[in-house]
Amino acid sequence: MKSILLVAHGSRRAESNQEIARLSDRLAAKASADVQIVEHAFLELCEPLIPDGIEKCIQRGATSVSVVPYFLARGTHVADDIPEQVAIKQSEYPDMDIQITDYLGTSDELVDVLLKLAV
Amino acid sequence: MKSILLVAHGSRRAESNQEIARLSDRLAAKASADVQIVEHAFLELCEPLIPDGIEKCIQRGATSVSVVPYFLARGTHVADDIPEQVAIKQSEYPDMDIQITDYLGTSDELVDVLLKLAV
Repeated sequence: MKSILLVAHGSRRAESNQEIARLSDRLAAKASADVQIVEHAFLELCEPLIPDGIEKCIQRGATSVSVVPYFLARGTHVADDIPEQVAIKQSEYPDMDIQITDYLGTSDELVDVLLKLAV
Repeated sequence: MKSILLVAHGSRRAESNQEIARLSDRLAAKASADVQIVEHAFLELCEPLIPDGIEKCIQRGATSVSVVPYFLARGTHVADDIPEQVAIKQSEYPDMDIQITDYLGTSDELVDVLLKLAV
């Protein structure tokens, strides 16, 4: 059973964090049949943190975890901090397939999304 | 002639700012026939700043400016800082149609973009 862990930065504003939880729910509703587990986690400022999010996926029966960074730019968070947090669980579960995907900002489709907003 | 001003936060990393310039070029290439002007600007840390970006659109002949916030969450930047910067030009050009659109994070289509990344 594949799983997705949506990872956002985390905010001091509860409302922003709730927005991520709602987005995660919408991902779950739209995910294909073989992705039955969608969870979310935060890099900092808000729980669940990334290792806990990965643990949740595994406890729900995931055989793989795709960590999807909800970030627009390849800053330190994407380049270093997220991989560091994910590595904690990768060494705890060496046989589990835990991967970090490209971050949101790399998607070609953002151009279409932005054009739609602008019109 | 309609114009789009893509507004990103701005970074100390030149590479991140160049990413925005490239995204703006891709927007220009894909924009519909009636949006002939696409520029980009930054809220802080990097030039052009928002008022300069709006000015550039107007100098290029824009009759309207859609300011599109390239932001994922409705934090202070989206709620207060961007409107404040845009207001400078709105009062300078009271007859020009200068509007701020919804920010990127509001787009329903992000769910599909994220799912595509995860698979």
